[in-house]
Amino acid sequence: MTEPLFDTIAVIGLGLIGSSVARGVKSRGLARRLVGYDVSEEVRARSSELGFCDDVAATPEAAAAGADLIVVAVPVGATAKAVEAIATHLKEGAIVTEVGSVKAAVIRQVLAVLPAHASFVPGHPIAGTEHSGPDAGFAELFDGRWCILTPCERSTDEAVAKVTALWRGLGSAVEIMTPEHHDIVLAITSHIPHLIAYNIVGTASDLEQVTSSEVIKFSAGGFRDFTRIASSDPVMWRDVFLNNKQAVLEVLGRFTEDLAALQRMIRWDDGEALLELFTRTRAIRRGIIEAGQDTPEADFGRPHGHEE
Amino acid sequence: MTEPLFDTIAVIGLGLIGSSVARGVKSRGLARRLVGYDVSEEVRARSSELGFCDDVAATPEAAAAGADLIVVAVPVGATAKAVEAIATHLKEGAIVTEVGSVKAAVIRQVLAVLPAHASFVPGHPIAGTEHSGPDAGFAELFDGRWCILTPCERSTDEAVAKVTALWRGLGSAVEIMTPEHHDIVLAITSHIPHLIAYNIVGTASDLEQVTSSEVIKFSAGGFRDFTRIASSDPVMWRDVFLNNKQAVLEVLGRFTEDLAALQRMIRWDDGEALLELFTRTRAIRRGIIEAGQDTPEADFGRPHGHEE
Repeated sequence: MTEPLFDTIAVIGLGLIGSSVARGVKSRGLARRLVGYDVSEEVRARSSELGFCDDVAATPEAAAAGADLIVVAVPVGATAKAVEAIATHLKEGAIVTEVGSVKAAVIRQVLAVLPAHASFVPGHPIAGTEHSGPDAGFAELFDGRWCILTPCERSTDEAVAKVTALWRGLGSAVEIMTPEHHDIVLAITSHIPHLIAYNIVGTASDLEQVTSSEVIKFSAGGFRDFTRIASSDPVMWRDVFLNNKQAVLEVLGRFTEDLAALQRMIRWDDGEALLELFTRTRAIRRGIIEAGQDTPEADFGRPHGHEE
Repeated sequence: MTEPLFDTIAVIGLGLIGSSVARGVKSRGLARRLVGYDVSEEVRARSSELGFCDDVAATPEAAAAGADLIVVAVPVGATAKAVEAIATHLKEGAIVTEVGSVKAAVIRQVLAVLPAHASFVPGHPIAGTEHSGPDAGFAELFDGRWCILTPCERSTDEAVAKVTALWRGLGSAVEIMTPEHHDIVLAITSHIPHLIAYNIVGTASDLEQVTSSEVIKFSAGGFRDFTRIASSDPVMWRDVFLNNKQAVLEVLGRFTEDLAALQRMIRWDDGEALLELFTRTRAIRRGIIEAGQDTPEADFGRPHGHEE
């Protein structure tokens, strides 16, 4: 057994991501001790039952006191408040990190409340499921995935190295980029996909000509996959859109422009242009499968699979 | 063993759907004899190798001659041509059916070439995967799914009953509706989801600020699921959009209008409205799971699953 990376890790927020970090840290022996805290009394009680923390603290201050690394895993809009709550209880040299889907705005907010004796390493594991809460987490969530770190003026080299080691320990590859670049990359790979999934599910439920029961019955034609994405945690996603406004609106503008062009191709029967686009999009799919970020198994056929 | 429903079934087009029909008919004993044909010599050769037909004919005429039921399973834009090719070879009382994703336009085109001694039952199994070709098919594809039939002036009651029995035999539930209603239901549950999936993958590959390699690496945040849908057969989908133009443009108009409202909520920090929409969309997801049209298992975490 190698030496644990940390003496004590505190995880603030025990939802899907926080509880997965806690489970992964315990199962891989990355810390001697792991203390958890969640703002919801119900989540704290359930986390104690599930037993993935050495201790579930009653207050954020109690969780953070004595921790070498504090992982804040709450919706983006609550991150700075969570850091503020523990600020005066952080030990000398403590490292604060977080896992939010937005970086530039969160960094601004956190730096305003971070005490001088702590360092801060913003991070974002690109992993998740559409489920939420402490029951949804699992130790292997980050295995084979990417984690992006976006160091800021309060990230010491040592702190970045230690947070990098944590994510590698959880099975992820680590990539470093600027907060601004992160925010535009995630706008296209995650935020806009979620936005249009939420939007089409909304459009479907408002159509007068088609009943909800028909939408549900015949959802296997493609719609179903959007409802999966559109069932992700609403508070988390509200905060993402409010905090990554600029990049989201920029990429959304491009999406809308492209959609208008596509609409025009359909209106004017431009089969050639449609075929060109529909063929081109297959290449990215191949890249994703080759990079191990998805499996080639047929998916629309579920839940039956296609074992013959 | 009960009596087979049909003496001879011919399947024209041996891609994902056609080869799945053939496999299902054989494995469930729905016909005494099943003859296949595909316009591609390569697909014919591969289908012979795979052995899911009793015979792979060299011409559509040879496949259709003597068949009681002819299942045309080709892209929507090629359906009428396929029917025209076999028209003079159809036996007295033969039933022609097809499986296309668009109904009103296809019916118009087929009725113009259908001989007087045959009947025609337009159908659409709501099942599929993102893969294409004879290797992609499997006998259970239609099991637990819906098949929509849209009878027209050339659908006799007897023919509708026999095609209904075929789909029930393949494991599907059958729903009857008008061609026009089918086309609007499918526009929202299938065509627009595919259109916006193709569109966002196109937008992503054209963004200057984000490289393709970054899109691929960080696709696990949601984008990945769109690329799966956007890797469906390009010719099939070009034909769908060109032949269901009116319903697609109508629903696309609604989608765009709703997206503009969503964009406005983000621009003006209307967190309450965002939260309301993101919460509302969860209800449709629950309905789909309760109706057995998807499983509640977490999906973003693949390929690792979340077995603990």
